[in-house]
Amino acid sequence: MTESPSTPGPVAFEDPAYLAAVVDLLGAIAYGEMSAFERLAEDAAMAPGLDDKAALARMASTEFGHFERLRERLEQVGADPFAAMQPFQQPFDAFHARTAPADWLEGLVKAYVGDGLAADFYREVAAFVDADTRELIIESLDDSGQSGFVVDRVRRAIVEDHRVGGRLALWGRRLMGEALTQAQQVAAERDALSALLAGGVDRPAMDLAAISRLFTRLTENHSKRMEALGLSA
Amino acid sequence: MTESPSTPGPVAFEDPAYLAAVVDLLGAIAYGEMSAFERLAEDAAMAPGLDDKAALARMASTEFGHFERLRERLEQVGADPFAAMQPFQQPFDAFHARTAPADWLEGLVKAYVGDGLAADFYREVAAFVDADTRELIIESLDDSGQSGFVVDRVRRAIVEDHRVGGRLALWGRRLMGEALTQAQQVAAERDALSALLAGGVDRPAMDLAAISRLFTRLTENHSKRMEALGLSA
Repeated sequence: MTESPSTPGPVAFEDPAYLAAVVDLLGAIAYGEMSAFERLAEDAAMAPGLDDKAALARMASTEFGHFERLRERLEQVGADPFAAMQPFQQPFDAFHARTAPADWLEGLVKAYVGDGLAADFYREVAAFVDADTRELIIESLDDSGQSGFVVDRVRRAIVEDHRVGGRLALWGRRLMGEALTQAQQVAAERDALSALLAGGVDRPAMDLAAISRLFTRLTENHSKRMEALGLSA
Repeated sequence: MTESPSTPGPVAFEDPAYLAAVVDLLGAIAYGEMSAFERLAEDAAMAPGLDDKAALARMASTEFGHFERLRERLEQVGADPFAAMQPFQQPFDAFHARTAPADWLEGLVKAYVGDGLAADFYREVAAFVDADTRELIIESLDDSGQSGFVVDRVRRAIVEDHRVGGRLALWGRRLMGEALTQAQQVAAERDALSALLAGGVDRPAMDLAAISRLFTRLTENHSKRMEALGLSA
């Protein structure tokens, strides 16, 4: 949340370009939450025990709760939530298809590393929107302390079999690569979203140096998450 | 909720047989909710559009919310919720394996008919437990008006292609048959649950005539649900 520009007031919604950008942003996050729900529910099916299954199902339900609030907000600003989500379906589904976890542990690492990366990115972009939208986005990214569960399970698995650590470290690097590839594609295709970062008459822009610092922050946070899991980044 | 016996007071929990029966009952419903969550989340993946997907994911999250309250209650009465659920894992999973929906519509019918039947049964059994437990069970069975969504989608599909009605009617009959088979197996294996219906010193029993009337009610309600979907029972 560095380089936070001045906050556009409610008047910003009268700017069609700004409205389109916010709808795009909320649509992307909403589809991401829905897609996280589906993925976590699938992972729950792979859980080794009922308590782990319940923990994953709880994470899935939390993501769905976030989705509901984003959907309401899209309706509030006069957008069709499903139309807003639609452009993000293909790139998100492609990411998930290319990173289908082979087992329970890969699913956990993906949930933790993938959601963390997405959350970091959205938090950065949220600095460019009005206060109400920003607050909703920040709330949607709250993981309710559920990542503690993942860290515990992954570290425990590495203690039991240290070879697991090498395999999961490679997996984490692949996730980061695939996520950046898809994010670049989305940025290239969604003009409204990119325009948000490029600024407007009454909104400050993010210059190339700032974008480069953003990527540095994303990469650093990814490394910290890998370390938290006991994996080399 | 006919033939409601007198409500056992909190003192009932001092009776180990009664406590065991309540733990069995809550464990069964809790596993059923968890399993409904998983099934609905799987069905969401088959949804033809994002709005349908969201509707199914919403149903799944509601079931998970019920699960959480049942889990808390099991902990309150001093039971390990996962140990209480464990005996029901095999029969529920067997039911789901034998009735895996081939498509989106079969999934919807299963959600509606299966959950309706389970809810009827638990509501009947709830008449035999203390007021607090009963209230929790009744709350857990509330579908928050979500069945309206299923009725709408199934009726619409039959209007579009009337052959769908014949196929789904057969499917509904099969679901009922498989559910009764599994329920009988559970009743035969879980002495504590059966003892609840058989009564105790301070609790009235359900005699054979009452059990026969119960089955008549379950069958009648099933027929009403099939009718609501526009299917012959």
